[in-house]
Amino acid sequence: MVISTSAGYTFTLRVELQNVAGTLGRLTSAIGRAGADIDAVDLVEKTRRTVVRDISVLCRDERHGEEVVRAARRAHGVTVRSVTDRTFALHHGGKIAVTPRFPVSGRDELSMAYTPGVGRVSRAIADAPERAWELTIKGNAVAILSDGSAVLGLGDVGPLAALPVMEGKAMLFKEFAGIDAYPICVRTRNPDELVAVGEAIEPGFGGINLEDIAAPGCFQVERRLQERLDIPVFHDDQHGTATVVLAALLNACLVVDRPLASLRVVLLGVGAAGIAITRILLRAGVGDLVAVDRPGILHPGLAGLDQERRWVAEHSNRDRLTGGLQEALRGADALVGVSGPRLLRPEWVATMRQDAILFALANPVPEIMPEEVPGNVRIVATGRSDYPNQINNALVFPGFFRGLLDSRARAVTDEMKLAAAHAIAGVVAADQPSEEYVVPSIFDRRVVPAVAAAVGGAAEAAGVTRGAG
Amino acid sequence: MVISTSAGYTFTLRVELQNVAGTLGRLTSAIGRAGADIDAVDLVEKTRRTVVRDISVLCRDERHGEEVVRAARRAHGVTVRSVTDRTFALHHGGKIAVTPRFPVSGRDELSMAYTPGVGRVSRAIADAPERAWELTIKGNAVAILSDGSAVLGLGDVGPLAALPVMEGKAMLFKEFAGIDAYPICVRTRNPDELVAVGEAIEPGFGGINLEDIAAPGCFQVERRLQERLDIPVFHDDQHGTATVVLAALLNACLVVDRPLASLRVVLLGVGAAGIAITRILLRAGVGDLVAVDRPGILHPGLAGLDQERRWVAEHSNRDRLTGGLQEALRGADALVGVSGPRLLRPEWVATMRQDAILFALANPVPEIMPEEVPGNVRIVATGRSDYPNQINNALVFPGFFRGLLDSRARAVTDEMKLAAAHAIAGVVAADQPSEEYVVPSIFDRRVVPAVAAAVGGAAEAAGVTRGAG
Repeated sequence: MVISTSAGYTFTLRVELQNVAGTLGRLTSAIGRAGADIDAVDLVEKTRRTVVRDISVLCRDERHGEEVVRAARRAHGVTVRSVTDRTFALHHGGKIAVTPRFPVSGRDELSMAYTPGVGRVSRAIADAPERAWELTIKGNAVAILSDGSAVLGLGDVGPLAALPVMEGKAMLFKEFAGIDAYPICVRTRNPDELVAVGEAIEPGFGGINLEDIAAPGCFQVERRLQERLDIPVFHDDQHGTATVVLAALLNACLVVDRPLASLRVVLLGVGAAGIAITRILLRAGVGDLVAVDRPGILHPGLAGLDQERRWVAEHSNRDRLTGGLQEALRGADALVGVSGPRLLRPEWVATMRQDAILFALANPVPEIMPEEVPGNVRIVATGRSDYPNQINNALVFPGFFRGLLDSRARAVTDEMKLAAAHAIAGVVAADQPSEEYVVPSIFDRRVVPAVAAAVGGAAEAAGVTRGAG
Repeated sequence: MVISTSAGYTFTLRVELQNVAGTLGRLTSAIGRAGADIDAVDLVEKTRRTVVRDISVLCRDERHGEEVVRAARRAHGVTVRSVTDRTFALHHGGKIAVTPRFPVSGRDELSMAYTPGVGRVSRAIADAPERAWELTIKGNAVAILSDGSAVLGLGDVGPLAALPVMEGKAMLFKEFAGIDAYPICVRTRNPDELVAVGEAIEPGFGGINLEDIAAPGCFQVERRLQERLDIPVFHDDQHGTATVVLAALLNACLVVDRPLASLRVVLLGVGAAGIAITRILLRAGVGDLVAVDRPGILHPGLAGLDQERRWVAEHSNRDRLTGGLQEALRGADALVGVSGPRLLRPEWVATMRQDAILFALANPVPEIMPEEVPGNVRIVATGRSDYPNQINNALVFPGFFRGLLDSRARAVTDEMKLAAAHAIAGVVAADQPSEEYVVPSIFDRRVVPAVAAAVGGAAEAAGVTRGAG
């Protein structure tokens, strides 16, 4: 398996080199032979006898980092003084800040931003609550609410360890869509309590992004919060993923020249994301969908299904297939995997139809590595940035919430998700989709405005917007 | 009663003037005669026949603003095109932002700030929770928690209308002490629910600032939260006010050359702030304190006292005075008013001792206007910025939380409040206190570091700090 190096595993080695020609070359060769990429070489100080340098190297993972350091230590004429993990260095002190939007450097600003001036603004909002949308941060603020029960690939690490992830998400909200998002990491294991907190803190926010909450609690939390609140609630792990999967599938259909309605899609992994993907694909008009989870193909006769999986079993698998993944794949047109590493064998994939579409989204190690995919597969997408077609919900949530906030939406609707998927797909369609280009880059500046406009339009159409304040 | 103009009531008039010598002069004279101060005159556009200007005027209050606009409209050759309220304009879109501490402009930063790099940071915190203090915003983050039940002079306006106040507070936290404070405005009228929310959101914060919560609920919320949490909890309306009152009183004692232990202090208004003032003054060693509330002087024989006021009644009023405010004032050395506008008559104040100290802190209209104070009073302080000696808790909370966070304190102690008061007083004492200078300006840059150091020292001494992470 080839795993490439990543800036996520960048280590900076401060090294002392003998001031003799060839020493640096020996060191960089040693690092290269150990499989790392050198990102930067900086001079720290130089004397007649020694040169001190900082060498930043990209590694594959932590263990690889240790190997590289060992290789550097063995290079002749080189002393490794210290090793800094750049990711940890960047996290020092946290990744976000709460800052004034204008300086409060004198009495005049103070008397407008705080007492006595602020009293008039409070009074105005007390008299007409909708004015909070224009006169406070509410209209641009999103709570990133998590209990840390299902964090990335780490699982149930709890609210404190979830905080760096939520801070990262807040950075993306601001960087991509100008949204002020603040992490609210809640210490609870009880969905009811999470709902109670979301409900209680509503006044200060214009929307709630639920994040990294384990199934099945996440369904309940989202449903109840949206029922009780007058601001939109969006569980990104479900709907962000589902929306970008649909966008990619729409463009894949263009590339293989097949209508969506003609596809039989196999869904591997029926967790939070898988259930949302099922819903959106059925809604979008996919021909058929066969869902496969640990007990095999989901069908109405299967015992022991919880409420959500039962819904999937009853609304999918038109031909009532039974069996396991192998049976599901035979003759299928597309596969969407949101399960675990290396669960797909090449020989099973080979039984899919010609021009098959394969989205292997398990992270960081996909269901099957792109290199191992057989020849009948025409389009491969993963969740990774080091292969083409990265299926990343960062394509969705910034623009989605921008649209929700701009339209002052009261709720999230399925139509918004469909509209957002079509908008993302449309960015690629404008360029000409291809096997290696079914989704745009998350750094494509056209994405957020397109998604925001689509969501806003769907909000207007559904009549879930607030009258302008 | 003289009320001066304030930047909190700044209106910008866009006016069209005939381009004839003397027109601007007529307008500015009219505004001046109406009692407003002209802050700025800007040119917008000029033609042969007309000149358009923006005139910013400081008024006393909203009604006065309307009078001034009427006066401007009456000026010959002047057309008022529009009037903008500068305070509202400044509030547009909110006063704070959540911003990345470094840009996420490419894949490399993304892979360090977010996946996959962030996973290692989460894992490190899951393994050693104390590392959250260095690797996330927690170590610099304060929740400003309010239910909006006692906002400024406005009363129970609720959490939504409280938001602009909390945002203003967050600005001051950042501007004065570099702290990332975020408003958490909670929709509840139940102290238990407020406690539950504070408890639930603890993971993301290094401290909780309770704000604008009505008595007696505020006592219960603060006590229970501090009992249950391992981060400091500070109700600013109580302890911020009490701390700065003690600081001012310490310097006032220097000016009138009287030891604190010799003073009999009358406290007028036994709400949240009044009770905290009672506690800190008794703790600091004031000679005696006589508390006066609506039913008159508090003494143990008084019926119908709640738990907190009963405590005050039992621990104050050494001579068991009875009666009302008039009786309490006779022969007293100092008065601290945290009650309502114009409750003190000059003839009552005249019965206090020579060189009396008078802190009339009701806002915006004090218990007695400084101009009306009789000759036996030597030192007057108010809560207002337009008189000398402004007693403002912005002198306390930024440095107090800076000290709490820097020392990673687990709780707030009374010793910290005393230490903070002495630190604030010390800034003035270093310069030489006088009748008009018993507290520093909130813009005095010496205050925050002095308070932070005092609080940190008290935390160390009390053993309530976390071992450095």
